[in-house]
Amino acid sequence: MIKEDRRVKQITPKSEDFSKWYVEIIRKTEMADYAPVKGMMVIRPYGYSIWEHIQSGLDRRIKETGHSNAYFPLFIPESSLQKEAEHVEGFTPEVAWVTQGGTEELEERLAVRPTSEAIIGSMYSKWIKSYRDLPLLINQWANIVRWEKVTRPFIRTTEFLWQEGHTVHETAEEAQEETMKILALYKEFAETELAIPVLSGIKSDREKFAGAEATYAIEGLMGDGKALQMGTSHNLGQHFSKVFQIRFEDREQTLQYAWQTSWGMSTRLVGAVVMSHGDDSGLRLPPRIAPIQVVIVPISIGDWKETILPTAGKLAAGLKKSGVRVYLDQREEYTPGWKFADWEMRGVPLRLEIGPRDVKSGQAVAVRRDTGAKESLSLDSLPQAVPELLQSIQDNLFNQALDFRRANTRSVCDYEEFKKVIETKRGFLLVPWCGDRACEDKIKEETMATIRVIPLTEEKTEGVCIRCEKKAGQQAYFARSY
Amino acid sequence: MIKEDRRVKQITPKSEDFSKWYVEIIRKTEMADYAPVKGMMVIRPYGYSIWEHIQSGLDRRIKETGHSNAYFPLFIPESSLQKEAEHVEGFTPEVAWVTQGGTEELEERLAVRPTSEAIIGSMYSKWIKSYRDLPLLINQWANIVRWEKVTRPFIRTTEFLWQEGHTVHETAEEAQEETMKILALYKEFAETELAIPVLSGIKSDREKFAGAEATYAIEGLMGDGKALQMGTSHNLGQHFSKVFQIRFEDREQTLQYAWQTSWGMSTRLVGAVVMSHGDDSGLRLPPRIAPIQVVIVPISIGDWKETILPTAGKLAAGLKKSGVRVYLDQREEYTPGWKFADWEMRGVPLRLEIGPRDVKSGQAVAVRRDTGAKESLSLDSLPQAVPELLQSIQDNLFNQALDFRRANTRSVCDYEEFKKVIETKRGFLLVPWCGDRACEDKIKEETMATIRVIPLTEEKTEGVCIRCEKKAGQQAYFARSY
Repeated sequence: MIKEDRRVKQITPKSEDFSKWYVEIIRKTEMADYAPVKGMMVIRPYGYSIWEHIQSGLDRRIKETGHSNAYFPLFIPESSLQKEAEHVEGFTPEVAWVTQGGTEELEERLAVRPTSEAIIGSMYSKWIKSYRDLPLLINQWANIVRWEKVTRPFIRTTEFLWQEGHTVHETAEEAQEETMKILALYKEFAETELAIPVLSGIKSDREKFAGAEATYAIEGLMGDGKALQMGTSHNLGQHFSKVFQIRFEDREQTLQYAWQTSWGMSTRLVGAVVMSHGDDSGLRLPPRIAPIQVVIVPISIGDWKETILPTAGKLAAGLKKSGVRVYLDQREEYTPGWKFADWEMRGVPLRLEIGPRDVKSGQAVAVRRDTGAKESLSLDSLPQAVPELLQSIQDNLFNQALDFRRANTRSVCDYEEFKKVIETKRGFLLVPWCGDRACEDKIKEETMATIRVIPLTEEKTEGVCIRCEKKAGQQAYFARSY
Repeated sequence: MIKEDRRVKQITPKSEDFSKWYVEIIRKTEMADYAPVKGMMVIRPYGYSIWEHIQSGLDRRIKETGHSNAYFPLFIPESSLQKEAEHVEGFTPEVAWVTQGGTEELEERLAVRPTSEAIIGSMYSKWIKSYRDLPLLINQWANIVRWEKVTRPFIRTTEFLWQEGHTVHETAEEAQEETMKILALYKEFAETELAIPVLSGIKSDREKFAGAEATYAIEGLMGDGKALQMGTSHNLGQHFSKVFQIRFEDREQTLQYAWQTSWGMSTRLVGAVVMSHGDDSGLRLPPRIAPIQVVIVPISIGDWKETILPTAGKLAAGLKKSGVRVYLDQREEYTPGWKFADWEMRGVPLRLEIGPRDVKSGQAVAVRRDTGAKESLSLDSLPQAVPELLQSIQDNLFNQALDFRRANTRSVCDYEEFKKVIETKRGFLLVPWCGDRACEDKIKEETMATIRVIPLTEEKTEGVCIRCEKKAGQQAYFARSY
């Protein structure tokens, strides 16, 4: 038990230094490590398994909505990247350039993809000839490189993994419909699988994707009151189809420029899970994406290998059969108490303890990671009870996060109050805004808060802009963000 | 039916020009396309779906044998790559170099990974301290870049996708055991999933991986009689642990260098499937990795939408329920005959045709892609009969490929005969060899054939080396190869 305390105390409390807590959790749980290249990380098996579960849930949804996966090249010729003016301006400062291939100096520099609109656009212009080729609904799972100055594991790294959807449509309406369909898919995914409630809406022009007509996003609220952009869905309009000549013969035999969308979610989501649900004892993983959903810890007393282990093994087999990801911790070099603390730190949703008395009474003690609640359950009932318990933990994590977001979302009309809240409490601030870039810039300068999303509503806003006091046409969610 | 003929005739016959046939198949079936970067390809949805099925079958096996997935950085500092002398010599000529990040000129060039031993070695030296940390069994799915001079879609491209396993062990014996376990796994995978029989064995020093102690490989025989290396398993010995200082405290508290393996299979396997099974009409896909296993073509005559389509739809739903990947082709712009030829070209293993008479008699006509055999089967029996038929197609493709390989594997003891066979028939040639690099080099120079594998056998070889006529200690499989 001494070891247990020591281990947990090694983690800086969340309330004391959130940033330090975050990085320590990531490293101590062996989710990720720093690599010998600046700003790059290694995703270790425990972190990568979370990503695999995220991939699997997201990939299923992407396919169910009619999209197919494909793979486009890592390198983009500089001339292609430069075709769309806003796009090149937005991404050039972040590009890693390949200038040598083997022993030869390249005639044209190659960008390591910072996103794939340009390379995909050049292919789509070859493939699309007629309205019969549309819609074209393609997704790619890939690595991305952006030369970042300040990095943080999972949240902002020089290289990250993501999916990027790239679709082409006959009409502006269809492209908009796709953009909104994906926004809804992302929201449902984040809330169902990651147990993170998100705000969704449209970005201001300042925050939109370089080259998009409009960017929509989902935003979560992290444990320190800062917002995190968790997924974006862009309506690209005809920006890329015009520069890449993506044209099709429409139903009236007229040549038209196509309408496009693109959208992405990344390994950043792993960081979002840590920052949304973690506590002073470590991770709290939503069961749906947890590498291990249930850990069984036999109480290693006396001849436990003969008396307890067989029962524990049978239980593990039964749970596995029920589709539960279970791990039986029969390591000899650690005490049960040390194991409890270790698995708590790693965020395993449910722990089952089996001691000598439990074996006799045909029970196990179930301990929930989300609440710490303990209860004795009969061994026979567990293969049925555990999946229900896991769902209850999933729901509770979501509800806790929702309560936290509600308590930290405030409607504010007065700029002094705005500044005070941002400084002391953070969270989301819903405020009337005139729509001018100038006001938005000043607010950022003065408070470090930016518009996260403008909610999608038909309602007109009463009142005046929080900054300039001109008539406000709309409301926007501001927050400090990652 | 005119359209049908025209379409198939567009493909160069396999016997006429295998190379041209291959590239045409790849492009016409929309498996892949050329990208605007030299030597790079785009894997289109039909090709990528084959890769996804390969990934899924391989990933399952890798996990079942105790390995976990992780992700390491794309970039490797030049100084890391240069630590292992043979490794750097082997890979430097093929490396793409990043020299600029954003606006800054990098102080040290970064290699875009041509393989990950170096970057992984530098991490393992941090993670491994004690024998308790071993074995460390990690696999990575990643993209790889090698600056190739001559490329061919899937078979040799500047960028490709693969999995690379990197394991660490306490003893030389355990590393060797792992190396052989993976070699066997690869063979079983290729034969079961891809229906490609493979030879397995050890590589000669000339052909081994740069930095390995020993390289083992599986080799398939393609339709033109050329060999293709389909997977490699390397025993790295202590080559990398010594230069990256991967050391552990052993059971006697002594510091030891660890023993390592690495192994990989890539998107090249997609090309292997095309070249092993394809015929003049196009692809023939093994059912286990086919994106579409069964296509249902309703015979579009008269009021087929009312009379035939509902039955076809019901059949599709029933097959889907049986776990079959089925596509109901109800496109109106194509004739049934055109569809038959199109799906044949795309290699769909089984076609089900339903016409007006079939509906009346409660039947469908099943046409196998592997043999062309047709039979009428009752609609009720199909959800059970189709999975059996698919297995029979899978088995038959394997057996056809095995027959082909057997017919094209020859034991030869005379060098003149060797040259004649290589020139006229190709295939595998099993020949006595002295073991000298010099002979091997000369044989390559004179015949373009190389040693593919040396079979793993205890038997001593009688006779003399095919080239130098000195005593031959062993036999080796020679072939021309990709």
